[in-house]
Amino acid sequence: MNITHIEHLGIAVKSLETAIPYYENVLGLKCYNIETVADQKVKTAFFKVGQTKIELLEPTSEESTIAKFIEKRGEGVHHVAFAVPDVASALKEVEEKGVQLIDKAPRAGAEGLNIAFLHPKSTLGVLTELCEQPK
Amino acid sequence: MNITHIEHLGIAVKSLETAIPYYENVLGLKCYNIETVADQKVKTAFFKVGQTKIELLEPTSEESTIAKFIEKRGEGVHHVAFAVPDVASALKEVEEKGVQLIDKAPRAGAEGLNIAFLHPKSTLGVLTELCEQPK
Repeated sequence: MNITHIEHLGIAVKSLETAIPYYENVLGLKCYNIETVADQKVKTAFFKVGQTKIELLEPTSEESTIAKFIEKRGEGVHHVAFAVPDVASALKEVEEKGVQLIDKAPRAGAEGLNIAFLHPKSTLGVLTELCEQPK
Repeated sequence: MNITHIEHLGIAVKSLETAIPYYENVLGLKCYNIETVADQKVKTAFFKVGQTKIELLEPTSEESTIAKFIEKRGEGVHHVAFAVPDVASALKEVEEKGVQLIDKAPRAGAEGLNIAFLHPKSTLGVLTELCEQPK
């Protein structure tokens, strides 16, 4: 697999209304996009830090996996997303190496990326996302 | 505060002997440094991913904060480290804005950086490190 950089960090927060002012006023970052991802039941806010984005994830329903994450572990880093040139071929490669996939094929994620998740049981506890810019 | 990029992600692992082959053979990254930080009771392994390093942290004692983290939450992302030009002035600024500091002043971290940690109670659940290259 040819990872070029960390595309984003997904961070679970209870409330964007509280979190955005912290990221802007304390850390000095700038929120450049807010987007609702209906099928994931989250509202997201994006910040750029060098090559990497920070994606804050607020659950929009108690059924959201983010709501369940916060309930179990509290707010904090939810996933790490690596940029690769080709998600489908990366999935094939890691599956052959014994990694358990959450997504068997790339699907549409926030900001127009093609994405897929690997299961944290296979990735030493780090919920891992692979992302590619669509061609 | 003027964050330039994510300097590294600290990831808690039970065993570098297990984790390094995953990061190298599955993710395709290259371990370029292994370092023991005696006062933190950890052995660390470093990988470069674009601008950002991944720092794997294996506890060398049950007294290590990393051992306690793994016991409580399992393996996974332990902290996020932001690169800033001047840690001392960044600490002063965030403390004035109400952030609770773990380190009141910069101290020596792995790879020769000057570092300080902010308390996750003040940073929406993300244990946050600030790092600077020494002048």
